[in-house]
Amino acid sequence: MAFNFDSTYSGDLDIQSLVQQAKQALQDLKNATGKGSDFLGWLTLPRDYDKEEYARIKLAAQKIRGQSQVLVVIGIGGSYLGARAAIEFVKSQTHNQNSDLEVYFAGNSLSSKALSNLLDYCKDKDVCVNVISKSGTTTECSVVFRVFKELLENKYGKAGAAERIYATTEYSRRSKLYELAQKEGYECFLVPDPVGGRYSVLTAVGLLPIAAAGVNTDALLKGACDAMEHYAKDGDNDALRYAIMRNLYYKAGKKLEIFAPWEPDFTMLGEWFKQLFGESEGKENKGVFPASVVYTTDLHSMGQYIQEGERTLFETMLAVKNCGSEILLKEEEGDPDGLNFLGGKPLSFLNKQAMEATRIAHFDGGVPNALIEIDRADEYHLGWLFYFFMLSCAVSGYLLGVNPFDQPGVEEYKVNMFALLGKPGFEKQREILTQRIESLC
Amino acid sequence: MAFNFDSTYSGDLDIQSLVQQAKQALQDLKNATGKGSDFLGWLTLPRDYDKEEYARIKLAAQKIRGQSQVLVVIGIGGSYLGARAAIEFVKSQTHNQNSDLEVYFAGNSLSSKALSNLLDYCKDKDVCVNVISKSGTTTECSVVFRVFKELLENKYGKAGAAERIYATTEYSRRSKLYELAQKEGYECFLVPDPVGGRYSVLTAVGLLPIAAAGVNTDALLKGACDAMEHYAKDGDNDALRYAIMRNLYYKAGKKLEIFAPWEPDFTMLGEWFKQLFGESEGKENKGVFPASVVYTTDLHSMGQYIQEGERTLFETMLAVKNCGSEILLKEEEGDPDGLNFLGGKPLSFLNKQAMEATRIAHFDGGVPNALIEIDRADEYHLGWLFYFFMLSCAVSGYLLGVNPFDQPGVEEYKVNMFALLGKPGFEKQREILTQRIESLC
Repeated sequence: MAFNFDSTYSGDLDIQSLVQQAKQALQDLKNATGKGSDFLGWLTLPRDYDKEEYARIKLAAQKIRGQSQVLVVIGIGGSYLGARAAIEFVKSQTHNQNSDLEVYFAGNSLSSKALSNLLDYCKDKDVCVNVISKSGTTTECSVVFRVFKELLENKYGKAGAAERIYATTEYSRRSKLYELAQKEGYECFLVPDPVGGRYSVLTAVGLLPIAAAGVNTDALLKGACDAMEHYAKDGDNDALRYAIMRNLYYKAGKKLEIFAPWEPDFTMLGEWFKQLFGESEGKENKGVFPASVVYTTDLHSMGQYIQEGERTLFETMLAVKNCGSEILLKEEEGDPDGLNFLGGKPLSFLNKQAMEATRIAHFDGGVPNALIEIDRADEYHLGWLFYFFMLSCAVSGYLLGVNPFDQPGVEEYKVNMFALLGKPGFEKQREILTQRIESLC
Repeated sequence: MAFNFDSTYSGDLDIQSLVQQAKQALQDLKNATGKGSDFLGWLTLPRDYDKEEYARIKLAAQKIRGQSQVLVVIGIGGSYLGARAAIEFVKSQTHNQNSDLEVYFAGNSLSSKALSNLLDYCKDKDVCVNVISKSGTTTECSVVFRVFKELLENKYGKAGAAERIYATTEYSRRSKLYELAQKEGYECFLVPDPVGGRYSVLTAVGLLPIAAAGVNTDALLKGACDAMEHYAKDGDNDALRYAIMRNLYYKAGKKLEIFAPWEPDFTMLGEWFKQLFGESEGKENKGVFPASVVYTTDLHSMGQYIQEGERTLFETMLAVKNCGSEILLKEEEGDPDGLNFLGGKPLSFLNKQAMEATRIAHFDGGVPNALIEIDRADEYHLGWLFYFFMLSCAVSGYLLGVNPFDQPGVEEYKVNMFALLGKPGFEKQREILTQRIESLC
């Protein structure tokens, strides 16, 4: 993996001081002496993962593929984005069209239309469910799981359903989902305590659905493990440099990062990226706002703003060197569209030139940009990328001075929601909120 | 449609002066006395559209449904986002699963992987193509159309292919696509000159694929026409108020708008929204940066940042009052997940309470928010919304002092790209750029 960025935007800022701080941050991660150091399980996970559980994950994935046409993965946030990102990155956004096992994600909204559509689709198919909730109490997930549990029990009976339900949760907090899995006999996978949701893609949270979709998780873990060893060095490395760059730009007034992959199949990786960085850094009234686009698609939608809007942006592109399936452009008689000068060129050449063209145009427009290049869009490189981003994010959060492992702000709407839903114990808040809503115009 | 927003964030700004300016902007649109007034075709289009062409669009849509299993729509930016947004809004994100005609969008990237996958999928199916390019020279679109044209000619012969290719382009500039359509005998639809790409969803650009997907375009146009008549009044109306609100917040330092629909099927409407506002306002180093999320999904990813990150955000939510397909939650023996207090409640009640909870949480966190509520997620209300947003956007651009109908910044990367691709006439730029790329680290 190669990483390059313009360091011309540092202005008067002291880059050397950031470099020292980044090295210190890496030490703090290794020694567990920084903020949130009880959530560092992900740091050595690609080497220290539970081998016995991993073997069970692979067996379960095989069993699911044998049992079913459809796997419904019920989870939200960190229990959703990583697996979906991985499957689409390695396979494709339309992987369900030509897969032995279709994978659908549910429990990531409270939309009755979305849920009804999926229930209809599953009616006449053989279905397995993987319910994923670290705490075991996430409302979206629990509500939707109730509905699918009923569907499966009606279809296969209680014992048959138990054979098709896989639970991924946490043991230590005695999650209600863990208790239910024990009682009903669901196969259960555990998320290690010191791994937060957005850092959990390489635990059972991500690995079971990813493996079930036919993605090679051995290679994924190998990529992450190689990245881990590579970036463990204290010196100058890309993971630190990316964190330094983000903080350098931020201090120079570039408050918004645009994550810009050059493959449509990386769209959901952009969503995973946004959670990772947004939730890790967006606190104490600071943090780079993470946005994402896909190129060249969004050069024709957000391109104008990026080129000429408020000059508070920087950009991180992600490109693939060898795209695998090549398409050669041909010459056409009469050159009806004036494109014959591209005859004999592969489509990937166009994509690559569009990228170089855009880097320069945006640079000239005042948008500094970084480029991450990987050799192939395969499992190994995705594992590397996952680790690269998680490590960079942790270092970047330390440079910013925040705890990159908590998410205190996520609770606020939940408390309001429980009150408004009439959850026992929230009566007083309910009264206050109801009055406030009436007065809100 | 109802629209509400907090006017408490105006600070010391003069809201009355903005109100006057907005009324003036509406007059400038009606009288064609504002910036970019040669691109106002969309303003009265829902009433003044070409009835003969519209009848041909509906016939072509019927013919496509009879001819094919798959319609491939080739277009990018404004020739892509509106149709996809409409089909997913009215049908669903997974509409291809249970539709007589599957609709795929291509030519919106230069990815050979994405194109290869779609070509593979189309190999054994009956296919029609709608190629959409206003100028008739968009690179992504032209390149991908060459490939599909070859596929169709190999499959059906030259005459058979011509029966299955529909071109949507512009007449006046004598687009190459128009010339090709005449020569090959493709059925051709024309985008009126004074309608820019991002304002073109209610022309053949949007209407043909939308109608082919089985969406009722009569109702869509009726909604837009009713909105047009409603907002043509000079007085206080929601379209003006939304434009005023955006500029009020922007002047108060809220530089980033989060468009937040409460239905996953509105995801692509968010992409359409981002092009409309981003491309209309993002110029002269100013403009609100448009981002989008989907709730409750992204409360578990971007929620932390929105609640507690940099306080430069405001939010515009979009919710549906009557969701159509209801799911009732049941009580469960033993209350294994503690959710029995929701027994008997419809899922839409939860979604609605989550929305109220979030509005208050974000308001309390310093994020002013507006709420657009529609009765139903149907064609009529979508037509109304399309018009509402286009009109608000034009007024908002005038308030900001920019021309909301041009996009000068989109050309920059294109010029670089043509040079790098070796297009005849760009030799000198090519030389300069090649050197610059080598020096870029």
